[in-house]
Amino acid sequence: MRHASSFLRSEKARMLSAPILPRALNEECGVFGIIGHDGPAAPIVALGLHALQHRGQEAAGITTYHDGQFHSDKQLGLVADHFNAEEVLAKLHGTSGIGHTRYSTTGESSLRNVQPLYADLDRGGIAIAHNGNLTNARNLRQELISKGSIFHTTSDSELFVQLTALSRGLTMSDKVIDAARAVEGAFALTVLTRDALIGVRDPVGIRPLVLGKLGDAHVLASESCAFDLIGAEFIRDVEPGEVIVCGRDGSLVSRRISAEAKNPRPCIFELIYFARPNSFVDGESVYDIRKRLGRTLAEESPVEADIISPIPDSGVPSAIGFAQASNVDYEMALIRSHYSGRTFIQPDQKVREMGVARKHSANAGVVRGKRVVLVDDSLVRGTTSRKIIKMIRDAGAKEVHLRVACPPITHPDFYGIDTPSKDELLASNNTVEEMRQQIGADSLAFLSLDGLYKALGKGPRDGDAPAFTDHCFTGDYPTSLIDQDKTESRIEQLSFLREAR
Amino acid sequence: MRHASSFLRSEKARMLSAPILPRALNEECGVFGIIGHDGPAAPIVALGLHALQHRGQEAAGITTYHDGQFHSDKQLGLVADHFNAEEVLAKLHGTSGIGHTRYSTTGESSLRNVQPLYADLDRGGIAIAHNGNLTNARNLRQELISKGSIFHTTSDSELFVQLTALSRGLTMSDKVIDAARAVEGAFALTVLTRDALIGVRDPVGIRPLVLGKLGDAHVLASESCAFDLIGAEFIRDVEPGEVIVCGRDGSLVSRRISAEAKNPRPCIFELIYFARPNSFVDGESVYDIRKRLGRTLAEESPVEADIISPIPDSGVPSAIGFAQASNVDYEMALIRSHYSGRTFIQPDQKVREMGVARKHSANAGVVRGKRVVLVDDSLVRGTTSRKIIKMIRDAGAKEVHLRVACPPITHPDFYGIDTPSKDELLASNNTVEEMRQQIGADSLAFLSLDGLYKALGKGPRDGDAPAFTDHCFTGDYPTSLIDQDKTESRIEQLSFLREAR
Amino acid sequence: MRHASSFLRSEKARMLSAPILPRALNEECGVFGIIGHDGPAAPIVALGLHALQHRGQEAAGITTYHDGQFHSDKQLGLVADHFNAEEVLAKLHGTSGIGHTRYSTTGESSLRNVQPLYADLDRGGIAIAHNGNLTNARNLRQELISKGSIFHTTSDSELFVQLTALSRGLTMSDKVIDAARAVEGAFALTVLTRDALIGVRDPVGIRPLVLGKLGDAHVLASESCAFDLIGAEFIRDVEPGEVIVCGRDGSLVSRRISAEAKNPRPCIFELIYFARPNSFVDGESVYDIRKRLGRTLAEESPVEADIISPIPDSGVPSAIGFAQASNVDYEMALIRSHYSGRTFIQPDQKVREMGVARKHSANAGVVRGKRVVLVDDSLVRGTTSRKIIKMIRDAGAKEVHLRVACPPITHPDFYGIDTPSKDELLASNNTVEEMRQQIGADSLAFLSLDGLYKALGKGPRDGDAPAFTDHCFTGDYPTSLIDQDKTESRIEQLSFLREAR
Amino acid sequence: MRHASSFLRSEKARMLSAPILPRALNEECGVFGIIGHDGPAAPIVALGLHALQHRGQEAAGITTYHDGQFHSDKQLGLVADHFNAEEVLAKLHGTSGIGHTRYSTTGESSLRNVQPLYADLDRGGIAIAHNGNLTNARNLRQELISKGSIFHTTSDSELFVQLTALSRGLTMSDKVIDAARAVEGAFALTVLTRDALIGVRDPVGIRPLVLGKLGDAHVLASESCAFDLIGAEFIRDVEPGEVIVCGRDGSLVSRRISAEAKNPRPCIFELIYFARPNSFVDGESVYDIRKRLGRTLAEESPVEADIISPIPDSGVPSAIGFAQASNVDYEMALIRSHYSGRTFIQPDQKVREMGVARKHSANAGVVRGKRVVLVDDSLVRGTTSRKIIKMIRDAGAKEVHLRVACPPITHPDFYGIDTPSKDELLASNNTVEEMRQQIGADSLAFLSLDGLYKALGKGPRDGDAPAFTDHCFTGDYPTSLIDQDKTESRIEQLSFLREAR
Repeated sequence: MRHASSFLRSEKARMLSAPILPRALNEECGVFGIIGHDGPAAPIVALGLHALQHRGQEAAGITTYHDGQFHSDKQLGLVADHFNAEEVLAKLHGTSGIGHTRYSTTGESSLRNVQPLYADLDRGGIAIAHNGNLTNARNLRQELISKGSIFHTTSDSELFVQLTALSRGLTMSDKVIDAARAVEGAFALTVLTRDALIGVRDPVGIRPLVLGKLGDAHVLASESCAFDLIGAEFIRDVEPGEVIVCGRDGSLVSRRISAEAKNPRPCIFELIYFARPNSFVDGESVYDIRKRLGRTLAEESPVEADIISPIPDSGVPSAIGFAQASNVDYEMALIRSHYSGRTFIQPDQKVREMGVARKHSANAGVVRGKRVVLVDDSLVRGTTSRKIIKMIRDAGAKEVHLRVACPPITHPDFYGIDTPSKDELLASNNTVEEMRQQIGADSLAFLSLDGLYKALGKGPRDGDAPAFTDHCFTGDYPTSLIDQDKTESRIEQLSFLREAR
Repeated sequence: MRHASSFLRSEKARMLSAPILPRALNEECGVFGIIGHDGPAAPIVALGLHALQHRGQEAAGITTYHDGQFHSDKQLGLVADHFNAEEVLAKLHGTSGIGHTRYSTTGESSLRNVQPLYADLDRGGIAIAHNGNLTNARNLRQELISKGSIFHTTSDSELFVQLTALSRGLTMSDKVIDAARAVEGAFALTVLTRDALIGVRDPVGIRPLVLGKLGDAHVLASESCAFDLIGAEFIRDVEPGEVIVCGRDGSLVSRRISAEAKNPRPCIFELIYFARPNSFVDGESVYDIRKRLGRTLAEESPVEADIISPIPDSGVPSAIGFAQASNVDYEMALIRSHYSGRTFIQPDQKVREMGVARKHSANAGVVRGKRVVLVDDSLVRGTTSRKIIKMIRDAGAKEVHLRVACPPITHPDFYGIDTPSKDELLASNNTVEEMRQQIGADSLAFLSLDGLYKALGKGPRDGDAPAFTDHCFTGDYPTSLIDQDKTESRIEQLSFLREAR
Repeated sequence: MRHASSFLRSEKARMLSAPILPRALNEECGVFGIIGHDGPAAPIVALGLHALQHRGQEAAGITTYHDGQFHSDKQLGLVADHFNAEEVLAKLHGTSGIGHTRYSTTGESSLRNVQPLYADLDRGGIAIAHNGNLTNARNLRQELISKGSIFHTTSDSELFVQLTALSRGLTMSDKVIDAARAVEGAFALTVLTRDALIGVRDPVGIRPLVLGKLGDAHVLASESCAFDLIGAEFIRDVEPGEVIVCGRDGSLVSRRISAEAKNPRPCIFELIYFARPNSFVDGESVYDIRKRLGRTLAEESPVEADIISPIPDSGVPSAIGFAQASNVDYEMALIRSHYSGRTFIQPDQKVREMGVARKHSANAGVVRGKRVVLVDDSLVRGTTSRKIIKMIRDAGAKEVHLRVACPPITHPDFYGIDTPSKDELLASNNTVEEMRQQIGADSLAFLSLDGLYKALGKGPRDGDAPAFTDHCFTGDYPTSLIDQDKTESRIEQLSFLREAR
Repeated sequence: MRHASSFLRSEKARMLSAPILPRALNEECGVFGIIGHDGPAAPIVALGLHALQHRGQEAAGITTYHDGQFHSDKQLGLVADHFNAEEVLAKLHGTSGIGHTRYSTTGESSLRNVQPLYADLDRGGIAIAHNGNLTNARNLRQELISKGSIFHTTSDSELFVQLTALSRGLTMSDKVIDAARAVEGAFALTVLTRDALIGVRDPVGIRPLVLGKLGDAHVLASESCAFDLIGAEFIRDVEPGEVIVCGRDGSLVSRRISAEAKNPRPCIFELIYFARPNSFVDGESVYDIRKRLGRTLAEESPVEADIISPIPDSGVPSAIGFAQASNVDYEMALIRSHYSGRTFIQPDQKVREMGVARKHSANAGVVRGKRVVLVDDSLVRGTTSRKIIKMIRDAGAKEVHLRVACPPITHPDFYGIDTPSKDELLASNNTVEEMRQQIGADSLAFLSLDGLYKALGKGPRDGDAPAFTDHCFTGDYPTSLIDQDKTESRIEQLSFLREAR
């Protein structure tokens, strides 16, 4: 029986129309912001988002502020597909602005959900861009609806807007802090008001947020690689639980979401998979970190072989580390096509399957008659690995070994990474030997959990106060999962909105 | 000085981008609704909207309900441009639905403002289509924003949605009545909930709304001509101040917005200009009414001539009436192109000017050497008339006389008709003789106010309790004009939203 | 068995995809041209084509010449949909240009076939716009292909281009005359070269072409109504068999396709149906001609009635004539929607059927209890008439009589009018009484053939040398029908091309 | 003074509109063909073209044959943008087909020029896809125009179609051989007729073409990597001067363009730059070849350094070879974004400049304080290198050395590679030392010409009969350059056509 009264607007043919699943709200995104620039903010925001494109390819949006007015443009597609046009950027007036690049699963791919979100409040407009996922979103949403609030998106991020509107805080940053206190889960926000650019990071610090300077302007971004592209200087990470208010006048005020301190646990997957190799996290080069993962892996699970090859491109740094530690030739056993997207980040299972065949080609000249070690950054469903191993074998390899530069992924994420359900996670239901058989490798080994912590300079893992959010490997979630716990009872009362475009 | 913090999203190239003017909220629209149909509602709603297309050509939308879910599709453009496609209609499931066809001035031509509007309320979804214009919209909007409501359109119609969401009424019709009580101005609504189709007409009855039956289904429409096209039977007008609740089970309950009765004054311009000639209003054929206007005009202001010609198409019935009363040959002095839109209803001045030249051609074969009487339904700016008279004269007419089948328009409308400002209304600043000179006619005459009431069977006009809303001729507005009175002080506090598309 | 090797490119979804039928090459179009204008030619050509829009609504194209280069733009859709944009016209440089507006049946609705057609010849470029249909096109096409010519359209008009390219004539007008001599059938051409605008009319003069002057510029158009819209002066008809060369310098040279004179027989259907009422043909107003058809019809087949009504809009002039001759009130029994296309001219049967219901509404206020005479310009399939008569009767008419202002149409056209096949022509297979029963009228009468000639001032018809091309009523075709005669044997060898868009 | 009468159709806004330059006809493309497949050909052709996407990203087209009809679809954009849709492929019926993927400079980016080209000949249809560039195209074109041929594209490839149509050869392969004899320059063709798939390679063998088998079907492709993706087996290279006729029945007939043998000289740039690393050319792995270039380069021009890094992705194999020969760590000094295109292959200078900044990021974690050797496959304008070297230095490198795995490029190409003019080629006007200064490297070295030949196993170069087409390094063009020699005198007589879309 369905009680829900959902509003399903028919979407344009090119919009995907899969059913709305509970996990549809999980998303990985990138955020950016600038204030006090000595020129138009929009081209800087566009470049910043382009540098963060790997964090979400589905849609992008920019909101700027100039002289009493907010200007915004949001589009499905890549940043460079739309925000490289002069006439587009010219309409986004002002020297301050925020941006968002977004990934979500199919059902939610509507323009309505694209951020930044905006609202006219009593004291002026506010625009918000959110990376992360809330774990009490449904619960709060129902409460607000019962009090007369009207939601206009299906995004959990809209709660920030609605809560800010309802807050009795005197200043905009008071209101934003009120909202941040009410929610649970992962959030890194850039917020634009008439007077300030506000950065917010959740108390656990799950999603990253960094502060920088471009001339006199302050900039915020999900990753430091965005600063490189625009030529900005990295200052520091925004702290877990910190609210940083960058004034239009260059001032910088640091506030806290709450007085009580939590144990910070940044998401370990940023280091392993999401962040760009040239980003720095906590002062360390991500490329170096991944080479260390490869080195440690080679030490833990060596293999006699003729060549070491990455599964490109994400496996490259760990493969180089592995090869250097093994003293075996590094070669490209796989040639990657530049005309296909990244496998893991494509929303649809069918596309993903086809994507593999088209994305990598075996390099027969290199693998023929050789014992090949393939190094990858992670193993999720195993589908891609199975195909690649078969392809290498068909191209004449004598042996094919797979080494994975992180531990087995056994638990789904609820903080902004679109992981498959537990059933689809290969490591959730199989031993390493079963996995090896399924993917058809001659041998298979994962980096150990302690090896991972060690390679990251924090090992071995402290079970009572782990340094990272690592539930994907351990099941140890850093916050309560309110919506998950009540899924069955709540889903019937919840109404989703889908946008015409 | 501007204090307003407006949110201006850049619009697609094909969207017009004129500044948002106060009068931009004035609009003329058509609404439709059906419940209890024994087949899909959407194709019926589409045909009904097509029959009401003359009431608004800018955009159209349909919302249906089926089995716990609302389905909606809204598009810029004509009904037939989008809602004739089988695949479009097939997605709008359900046997009940409402629709809206919309006209507004340029600045507001965004998809975001297209109706029906929708909200998920605590007790289920609600969709609303509104014809008319509210006169206390800004005032109310500011009040609600200060209490934490977030508006998502710039349309005054959204107030119905927001007020309904905030109402503590127990039933949906209670909530709708709460909302209807809070607003001032003109409104004819069709409202769709899970259980009912609700029709609402403002206490003065400014905008029309009629009730009909199609088999067992109840239907609501702005005009009876929509019933003809779908083969429905006309039952009666929805009364001014009435809330009619058509249940999914075929039930019909009539409620009142308030206990106190107002003097009903339907808008006289529906009879003179807006309604289709084949519609019936209060049991009278609109075509017959207009012929009577022409006859009365011929009696009041006869002219010795060789031929009587309408300015097609809206002047046809009154010209036929004028010709029959004058016993002079009815001819077509102007040939209308079928590849241009209706002059009066095009939003932009520049388009309007060009439109004239392309829309009518002088029929030289008929006017050469003749004394020509042109009959038109109304005279607004005079621009079109001047050009047409010149064209007829250039084609060889000996004399050109203009007869206008209504009184001089001296005051703007605030109830849903997009009239020009007082400055642009020709009759507001000129005597009849001055107007004659400006348009270049040999003679010019208007139907008198009493002649108008007489031709409508209500004459002469009762100044204390006029039978019609007729402020365009008299300045006698039927409701208070709260927003207008405070325009200067309020405009600065008000924020408008404009949609990306 | 199919031997043909056809090249079918897949078309965009919005392109119609009916099979290519033999009659698919029949088409009705409008042509226009100007040379020597003292400003840009393109806006004038666009307005001229807009005035000729009734001759073809499927596509339009303009080609201009400036300083050694030809510029062209061709689009599916109405003239006003594309050629009203300043940026579009600005790219069509030059003070001379030609244009074409096109109608064809579905299978041929591709951009590839849209005219003007262009070719680079040895002596410079040539652009051609053609109204009419050739009757030896397939024959010639096969011959040229066997000699190495490559055709790029499926349009018979391309023969003019190919033949011109192959001609050994010394001048462009020599080449064009060579081409005109080789073809058989109906053709009115406007041709643009570096030095001249050339007008060509086939020896029988089937399709019309008129010459005019706009300041110092010479203009050519299918109908004089195009001159009215641009403010040009009508000079004279281009003669049947005449080739008129308008030089860039203002010169005007008249040449002949061949020495031998043929009996000119302009197409009678231009007068009855196609031409705009405000056009003049042979010095006579088309509106007047049609009123005379109505008058003669009233004299031949009077009927006792309460009101006379046209089937709008094409029946208006003959209904006015009929009403004046009958001394019965002229009324509008049908109200036409401005949001639907012209019934007869829509390509697809299904669209045509739906179109009727949506295009006309019965005006119950006028017909209730009355004896109604409907006057129409022609009767083709009878489908529309049957529906309209039923609609009027359902609206309460006591009697419904149909009067048709031309004789029964019994034979298809092969000269540029898209008539249905003989089987679909109602009059081809039925007596008048059978037709009356099928359409459900109380009485039915057609204008007689001699009445038609008489009303046109040429009557009665001279069977040996009829003044008009009138085979639709008589089966007396003015030229040989080479392709038709050999249809069966040739169709297998013929290859059609369809364009991607 | 311009005498040319060019036909410039206005293009859609998104089409680039640069002037047509002489070098605009130069292009690099990929071709594919299959016949006798036991299922639909189109999906195989689409995958084959996708594998050849690196040879041209501007447009793609597929033509198939089924039961007397050819079906075709051509689109601007990537293969995967259009030809992955089921509904698109479903319309391309038949078990045989050819395809083309295309690159050209801006002015020619019109749909009209997209291949395969098609013509209906006397004996049936023929479709042609061409990789390469003709050197007597203008000359021949003028001759054919003067004899009455009408050209419909600006592509030199249309000459094959026109010449085939004019040939008196009895069979299709006779006609194709006639055409191939008449032209001069580089051509690898796939040709589809009713009965056969024909592969043609020019007598010098400049552009590659390989023959393979997929089950019983014969396949042709520009490179063997296309066979890998579809799972086809490589048979052999089509020989220079060979015409291979693959019958629908599985037959295979080898013919020759002419009796006299030429010295085959395949284009050396295919090995150095164009071919995919996983392709095999003459039995050798391209990846291996490039590694050898890197090794030889390391031997010729060693440098004391801390790390060796490719300029990704095209420099990867030679950098790996260089690193292995130098025994220095291979690292990624540059991180490549997956959201930008390949620099060299983008048509416009401005896009190219911006592209650099957005495409590579310096990997500061790796280069800081290090002596870095960058290895690239070639050096054309030097713009990219200069920026990259600066970026690496700004990221903290102590020294930056550039090693280029081919000799200096001093001469433009006229056989299908879009090289800049001599003026823009950095090596054409500068010594190595001057180049080093301009790009800002600490040292710069190129692979020597003899080193190149040696690494390819053919060295040293035989000046009388060089084994490769290598004019880019030597100025030794393998054929006459008829059009080039007469550029000045001919350009005025030549007319170009540009397509509306």
